[in-house]
Amino acid sequence: MDPNKTIAALGEFGLIDTLWRPLSRSKDRDVILGIGDDAAILSVTGDRHLLITTDTLVAGTHFDLQVDPVLLGQKALRVNLSDIAAMGGQPRWYLLSLNLPPTTPLSWITNFSKGLAAASQEFGVTLVGGDTVSGGDRVQIGITLLGLGEPGRATLRSMARPGDLIGVTGTIGDAGFGFAVQQGRYLGLSEADRLFFQQRFLLPTPRLSFGVEACESGVVHAMMDISDGLLADLTHICRASGVGAAIQTEQIPLSASGQRMVDNFGIEALESALTAGEDYELLLTLPPAAWQRIVEIGQQVGVSVTKIGYIIPAPPRVEVYREGQIHQVGTRGWTHF
Amino acid sequence: MDPNKTIAALGEFGLIDTLWRPLSRSKDRDVILGIGDDAAILSVTGDRHLLITTDTLVAGTHFDLQVDPVLLGQKALRVNLSDIAAMGGQPRWYLLSLNLPPTTPLSWITNFSKGLAAASQEFGVTLVGGDTVSGGDRVQIGITLLGLGEPGRATLRSMARPGDLIGVTGTIGDAGFGFAVQQGRYLGLSEADRLFFQQRFLLPTPRLSFGVEACESGVVHAMMDISDGLLADLTHICRASGVGAAIQTEQIPLSASGQRMVDNFGIEALESALTAGEDYELLLTLPPAAWQRIVEIGQQVGVSVTKIGYIIPAPPRVEVYREGQIHQVGTRGWTHF
Repeated sequence: MDPNKTIAALGEFGLIDTLWRPLSRSKDRDVILGIGDDAAILSVTGDRHLLITTDTLVAGTHFDLQVDPVLLGQKALRVNLSDIAAMGGQPRWYLLSLNLPPTTPLSWITNFSKGLAAASQEFGVTLVGGDTVSGGDRVQIGITLLGLGEPGRATLRSMARPGDLIGVTGTIGDAGFGFAVQQGRYLGLSEADRLFFQQRFLLPTPRLSFGVEACESGVVHAMMDISDGLLADLTHICRASGVGAAIQTEQIPLSASGQRMVDNFGIEALESALTAGEDYELLLTLPPAAWQRIVEIGQQVGVSVTKIGYIIPAPPRVEVYREGQIHQVGTRGWTHF
Repeated sequence: MDPNKTIAALGEFGLIDTLWRPLSRSKDRDVILGIGDDAAILSVTGDRHLLITTDTLVAGTHFDLQVDPVLLGQKALRVNLSDIAAMGGQPRWYLLSLNLPPTTPLSWITNFSKGLAAASQEFGVTLVGGDTVSGGDRVQIGITLLGLGEPGRATLRSMARPGDLIGVTGTIGDAGFGFAVQQGRYLGLSEADRLFFQQRFLLPTPRLSFGVEACESGVVHAMMDISDGLLADLTHICRASGVGAAIQTEQIPLSASGQRMVDNFGIEALESALTAGEDYELLLTLPPAAWQRIVEIGQQVGVSVTKIGYIIPAPPRVEVYREGQIHQVGTRGWTHF
């Protein structure tokens, strides 16, 4: 091995494939699903599966220390709740691992805990452990969330089949516009649009009821939450399932504010909606015959579901169509290294 | 609140008491034990309890990047296994959260994963999830370990009673000497002693079989693992149980190498053994009538158990006796801020 080679050369997914996936192979039959999906699935009892997911947020990389710490506390928990939603689980307990530089103001952490408390109460989860360390130059927030699900009902990334319709909940791209606005881009927006985008970026809504009902219906094949961006996450489904996907930009559900962005900023805003992350909507595939069922489930729980394309045979890539033509998109999701 | 006040003023335990403990209060009856012990206990099924613990190691604070990354991978898992041992549980699954500066050599992380793999295999645990992020100036390793235990059998910090004997497994102080040697202190030791201490520091042995058997025996009241140091951890038991403790320095079990340190360096080495952390031996309290039972359990699993003192009524503090007199110890354990 080249002794000068750094992890930047391999990237997050390279590390997963070369180092962590081998460690995840085991003869343990209680590991129903190991690494590589929204959450692991563990069999601890005959009638309930344990779901577990973890996420680390680093100041300056994943969030801005200037952001209201109450909202950050909310978001840190909500993004993990979204992973449990994508597995159709019921979230229950969480651990909090904090790394705080000694100079962190006490008011910051007190307000952060208020945000956590609000989200804990709203979504019915309880803090059960964690640790707080010091060292390093940046605030880091690690949350590990546990949930329970019904055996045999989880909707995995690997379950998409050619011919499936592709659906998404809610609207796409708002969080990315919120992030851009926070970075000082897109000046001149109305105050209402600006606040809407920021709210969508800072207070994502985990689609928990939809996730549970969609799983229980038994009609959904693959499901995941959109954290890296629509195209990147759909590519994850394609790779895990060994299928391709074709989507049409005209069908991407935009909020009224998002539609104004596309009207005013054109292709740039459209591509932002396709590639920006952190919407935390659910992306799912299911047979066309079951579409009406999933729309009804959305109506029951008050979440819109929109058809954006369909699953096609491999190779595992996403074809984007715009006005009937293949559209080449500039960037695809985030890379961490 | 003073806007200039930082978390350093509150400390780790202050944060737990003021911020995290309120978040841990819940009406959720499946939370058998929340924050504040070696692991949380969650009821997921009638006949098995889930145990969960998490630990973050920061380069420069908790470990030295010059240390062999294979050993570090071993240690990162072993210290968490020790927490499950202290609850009498069987470790099963873990998550790995890494923060790696982009310049981290690929060889470092590859070797780290080899250490993890070796410990995973030795102790029968499987990696089931995690994440890898970048950002920040230091390598950080977070491990969350899950185990299973029998309902009603966990040995908590809060269960010590006046009149209990206090016991410890193995020998005390070796890891602290290993750390000191790594820091360049205690020059002139024999090569054999130096290597022994370093091994005890870098490759702690989680007392898993002892922990399971001690719990199953039903005779142990309080139990925890020694990570912060004997006096600091015994103080944790005293506070959680609302009791005091009296120990005698002559009874502290020292390895042959440790005894040589006390012979050569006197009080300084003795106090190091009492206060240095990371031995990962088990500290337990039990009624005198049950002492013979716990010694037999130790013999069955090949671990020595030594009586070092007894639990006395509150106030919750540890009295240290040396040659029949109260001995004032200079420092007590680590503080993280």
